[in-house]
Amino acid sequence: MTTQPRMVEVRARILKENDVLARRLRERFQRAGVRVISFVSSPGSGKTTFLEKLMSRMAGRHRIAALVGDLATENDAARLARTCTQVRQITTGTICHLDAKMVAGALDGWQLDDLDFLFIENVGNLVCPSSYDLGEQMRVVLLSATEGEDKPLKYPTIFNTSDVALITKIDMADAAEFDRETARRNILSVRPGMRILEVSAKTGAGMQETEDFLESVCVSDT
Amino acid sequence: MTTQPRMVEVRARILKENDVLARRLRERFQRAGVRVISFVSSPGSGKTTFLEKLMSRMAGRHRIAALVGDLATENDAARLARTCTQVRQITTGTICHLDAKMVAGALDGWQLDDLDFLFIENVGNLVCPSSYDLGEQMRVVLLSATEGEDKPLKYPTIFNTSDVALITKIDMADAAEFDRETARRNILSVRPGMRILEVSAKTGAGMQETEDFLESVCVSDT
Repeated sequence: MTTQPRMVEVRARILKENDVLARRLRERFQRAGVRVISFVSSPGSGKTTFLEKLMSRMAGRHRIAALVGDLATENDAARLARTCTQVRQITTGTICHLDAKMVAGALDGWQLDDLDFLFIENVGNLVCPSSYDLGEQMRVVLLSATEGEDKPLKYPTIFNTSDVALITKIDMADAAEFDRETARRNILSVRPGMRILEVSAKTGAGMQETEDFLESVCVSDT
Repeated sequence: MTTQPRMVEVRARILKENDVLARRLRERFQRAGVRVISFVSSPGSGKTTFLEKLMSRMAGRHRIAALVGDLATENDAARLARTCTQVRQITTGTICHLDAKMVAGALDGWQLDDLDFLFIENVGNLVCPSSYDLGEQMRVVLLSATEGEDKPLKYPTIFNTSDVALITKIDMADAAEFDRETARRNILSVRPGMRILEVSAKTGAGMQETEDFLESVCVSDT
């Protein structure tokens, strides 16, 4: 196991290169005036279902595009494309996260000036995506009511590197014996002051508040 | 991004070293006559709850120990320790998977000859654990009914490198509008002939069948 330090060293260099590329992307998004919001979560937390509902609601009033990351299949892009917005799938193969280079490549040919929002759905993974800046202005971590309240404590980095926590599938909270207060306390213990929203894409509960919140995000001036 | 090939090369070497160590572990488990079964899944699929129930049922008739992997906290080890079996937590920090070296280290001081079963609960992650052989005799991938039927198609490698699929939280299948047949079809399209079991740790449904199946696993003679 003598190669472990080399692995760490190579990984640090790759992360640094990613940071440089992400900074360039962020400047590009800012110049174009597009608000870029990324979504991270476990597999099956409801990212695609939530985005499908959100984009359907927002599509009439905003110009929206989305990038969707998965190891395999283009199913999610096909689902989101039903909302009549521009959608591209990024298929990562065995890579467990999106990185800034993949995002930059997927934007090829799109006129960012013509967009109000770009949503980026990361690969379903509560660990690896936390290390990769995608140039986004805001990162939202989803936690479904069926996953249990302890996830923020067990995966602290992804909550720490996110700006907003979105508790999904709230309609199933009672069936899953999900304790909202414990979940909130755990989120806030990892990231004090974090904005927490609750939503059910199925019943529509919380969708208006979430939509209002995302619409209130201003184009970054940093 | 010129360092990517170096990253791949270093990763290949680490995986090869892991394979060597895993082979040694497998031989050691075989000599001791202990059946070693590992469990992989998304965060929140119910690995710990399932294992807690399984170990409680089996503890009277078998000598059992468990290793539990998480990025942070020792909560899961504390939960499993209530079953009065030997339990050790492996805290991985920012590492997204267990590897053979971590498993070997965690066994220190345990008499494997005195065990019938060793259960290993991996970090909740449907991507990275697939590449790391832990010397286990059988790998079980859990898929909860609340995660959706499409996960085998989107995370094919973890299903391909597992021997058995265990559909958990089956009591919530109706509430989650989970389509069993589609899930089974998707699992089998990725890994034809895969054994599929359904279970609810909450209601106990399927627990007896799962227990019988795991008890029927013979000590490897390979």
